[in-house]
Amino acid sequence: MTRLLIVGGSDAGISAGLRARELAPDVEATLVVADAYPNYSICGIPYHLSGEVPDWRSLAHRSQTDLETAGLELLLCHTARQIDPVAQKLTVTDPAGAEVALAYDTLVVATGATPLRPPIAGLDRLGATEGVHLLHTMDDTFAVADTLTRRTAERAVIVGAGYIGMEMADALTVRGLAVTVVETLPQVLPTVDPELAALVEAELVGHGVEVVTDTTVTEIHHTGGELHVSGAGGFARSADLVLVVVGVRPDTTLATAAGATIGARGALAVDRRMRTNLPGVYAAGDCVHTYHRVLDADAYLPLGTTAHKQGRVAGENAVGAERTFAGSLGTQVVKIFDLTIARTGLRHHEAAAAAGLAPRTVPVTLDDHKAYFPGAQPVHVRITGDTRTGRLLGVQMLGALATGVAKRIDTAATALYHHMSVEELSDLDLSYTPPLGSPWDVLQAAAQAWASDSHPATPKAPGP
Amino acid sequence: MTRLLIVGGSDAGISAGLRARELAPDVEATLVVADAYPNYSICGIPYHLSGEVPDWRSLAHRSQTDLETAGLELLLCHTARQIDPVAQKLTVTDPAGAEVALAYDTLVVATGATPLRPPIAGLDRLGATEGVHLLHTMDDTFAVADTLTRRTAERAVIVGAGYIGMEMADALTVRGLAVTVVETLPQVLPTVDPELAALVEAELVGHGVEVVTDTTVTEIHHTGGELHVSGAGGFARSADLVLVVVGVRPDTTLATAAGATIGARGALAVDRRMRTNLPGVYAAGDCVHTYHRVLDADAYLPLGTTAHKQGRVAGENAVGAERTFAGSLGTQVVKIFDLTIARTGLRHHEAAAAAGLAPRTVPVTLDDHKAYFPGAQPVHVRITGDTRTGRLLGVQMLGALATGVAKRIDTAATALYHHMSVEELSDLDLSYTPPLGSPWDVLQAAAQAWASDSHPATPKAPGP
Repeated sequence: MTRLLIVGGSDAGISAGLRARELAPDVEATLVVADAYPNYSICGIPYHLSGEVPDWRSLAHRSQTDLETAGLELLLCHTARQIDPVAQKLTVTDPAGAEVALAYDTLVVATGATPLRPPIAGLDRLGATEGVHLLHTMDDTFAVADTLTRRTAERAVIVGAGYIGMEMADALTVRGLAVTVVETLPQVLPTVDPELAALVEAELVGHGVEVVTDTTVTEIHHTGGELHVSGAGGFARSADLVLVVVGVRPDTTLATAAGATIGARGALAVDRRMRTNLPGVYAAGDCVHTYHRVLDADAYLPLGTTAHKQGRVAGENAVGAERTFAGSLGTQVVKIFDLTIARTGLRHHEAAAAAGLAPRTVPVTLDDHKAYFPGAQPVHVRITGDTRTGRLLGVQMLGALATGVAKRIDTAATALYHHMSVEELSDLDLSYTPPLGSPWDVLQAAAQAWASDSHPATPKAPGP
Repeated sequence: MTRLLIVGGSDAGISAGLRARELAPDVEATLVVADAYPNYSICGIPYHLSGEVPDWRSLAHRSQTDLETAGLELLLCHTARQIDPVAQKLTVTDPAGAEVALAYDTLVVATGATPLRPPIAGLDRLGATEGVHLLHTMDDTFAVADTLTRRTAERAVIVGAGYIGMEMADALTVRGLAVTVVETLPQVLPTVDPELAALVEAELVGHGVEVVTDTTVTEIHHTGGELHVSGAGGFARSADLVLVVVGVRPDTTLATAAGATIGARGALAVDRRMRTNLPGVYAAGDCVHTYHRVLDADAYLPLGTTAHKQGRVAGENAVGAERTFAGSLGTQVVKIFDLTIARTGLRHHEAAAAAGLAPRTVPVTLDDHKAYFPGAQPVHVRITGDTRTGRLLGVQMLGALATGVAKRIDTAATALYHHMSVEELSDLDLSYTPPLGSPWDVLQAAAQAWASDSHPATPKAPGP
């Protein structure tokens, strides 16, 4: 019987275990989980803290019983300490503090990422007790919830305007707090173009959020029962809660100590079968680099969807299949109040930095459905293509919730997956009914605008 | 200078003209339009009749001025009578009744379709005066509007439960009429599987529509100022308005009289460049058969989206390009009250009837987004794949408006366009945020259910 050991109980680890058991029901699959919360939806944390998901338990994708019924053995509150790739053993510390060596035939490292701690004076000294939080785990979540309820926080400062910062600005506003977001860069949501970020900022401001960009927080101190956040350019705000959410870095310690090689952006190097350089050791999720299908190169994209897919591939290969990870496109969507903002593939500057690409980006704003039917709203599209080959490189979209941006981007992602040209998008047979679309879909109309702008059509001499 | 003549002012004709002018601004493009309403959105008619689009003029995709500014010459209220393909002349009747011969270098026939008239006794004698209507043109629309307003119709019988019948049941209910829908077949919306049609019927009934299936209307008569509709099995209803909407047939008379060949389902035969067998004569839209990309054969799919694409291809080729129509997948979506029902590709029985396919259809019902976030609603998916090759053949989906079914189907359509396998759908990098989706999208979860059910995975012997 094959002994499969998995370190990590989040998306990649669980996916690997479930898939391995599905394909090889006789495999002995054990998960070493650092906390007591396997298979929790980390992406759902903001909605618990907003109050929209009252019971934190409902954030579990599956219950412990579900996982055990699927044949996974869970070692909760166990910390993985050391991999011995020669002896094929993993040393763990159990909840009582005792060291235990677990033998494996195949190991999947799914240790995830850890939140970045920016160099802010005071951050090392202050913590949950004072209302200063990082936000990455369920324990972090409970700590924030405690600050919100026990201390009845009224004012929050969020350091970092990325996905989590934006979702938490929404969440804490919904919960009734006065929220300030501070971002070092000149725009919120730095994962999309400034033109779209400006619309996101307007949405935040429209909901009462104070947005401070181009400002680096340098110090947090705690006096008189409140927090004081200060930064460059005289920035100073008082708060009851400070969230520091400036990104993550791959958690590679366990694997690198055993000799695993580092790849792109400090993440573990894996091939497209999710194999590390260590024999019998696979890795997947936020701790590894990610094959980017448009770049045809490795990148770092810590996303739940990618972790699920990589975990599934690792789980298949761990039980003897030969599955290749198809790659990520960096497809992402975020809801911020009534807006949805989505992207897939490369942005202009990312494409420009890649070898051999000559990107052109065309912005188009179109109605989500026929204007004559009530309720039409704009969809802002930015379509990036390669002027040398005509190939589609990336799409960004922004629109109100009802405009369907979150699903429209998936059509673009499917097109990117297949390396379509921008012009070929017009050939897609997409659905149409006047209350929900147009005969040429928004993506197709944007593609036609790009093609007219970038590739003047030069037909041969007219004639029958 | 090339003289391009186009017969028809709806989707295919207008697309052909606009595209020709875009690529070859010196082409002389003239459209012969049978009525005074070029470029009207026929698909929008129900929303005008419901009252949701008060001004019928807003149903125009483009105004006459827009079209003329784009360089199209419009001969409105001109009827095309005869093509002389040897002399390259088209004879038309002008509004005064005079015959005029127009010379062309290239001709595009976009004569569309005409509504079917089922063999109902009385249908030939009764018309708009009595409140009996077919519904296909703007003139038909005005006549129905007149019946609705002048006669203050309160009870409507709709004969035919296809797309238009369903949309008109919605529209007339919104307008306050008591509506009965009668359908010969055992289900409403015969373009989707009975399991989904049952949910559509429940939606209709829930909004007060009477649905009578398995019943063929045999007679309409007009007495005592009202209409009496009767049919098989003792069906009898009185009404102020009767709509007969049982489908269309291609309008091929003009082209076949000149020697054009008939293809699939009685429609004009064209190749994938949209060329008829007549030299210099292209055809596009509801009058021609359609290359079906999954079947790799010709079918008949009178849809606005297809007409736009075929018209665009005809317009390009008419000015000397060499563009090939990529094919249709039969992608369709319809909104009926708060439901959306969409499909793309083949249904089970369509695939079973095709050579070389061994379809299997798996029904799955999934939440549109993570259940923990408020407002999750079911999406009913029916996924059809070929058990011999694993290839995706078709997808049907049904869900409430907010579930994004109309855009979700487009991902399936894009996958079908690329001949993906069902299993490969799991490799797509689709977007995810808990309020709008799941880490494995609905389509991917359905694909996984199909794959588990149809293709038991058989990995090699487990091992590292």
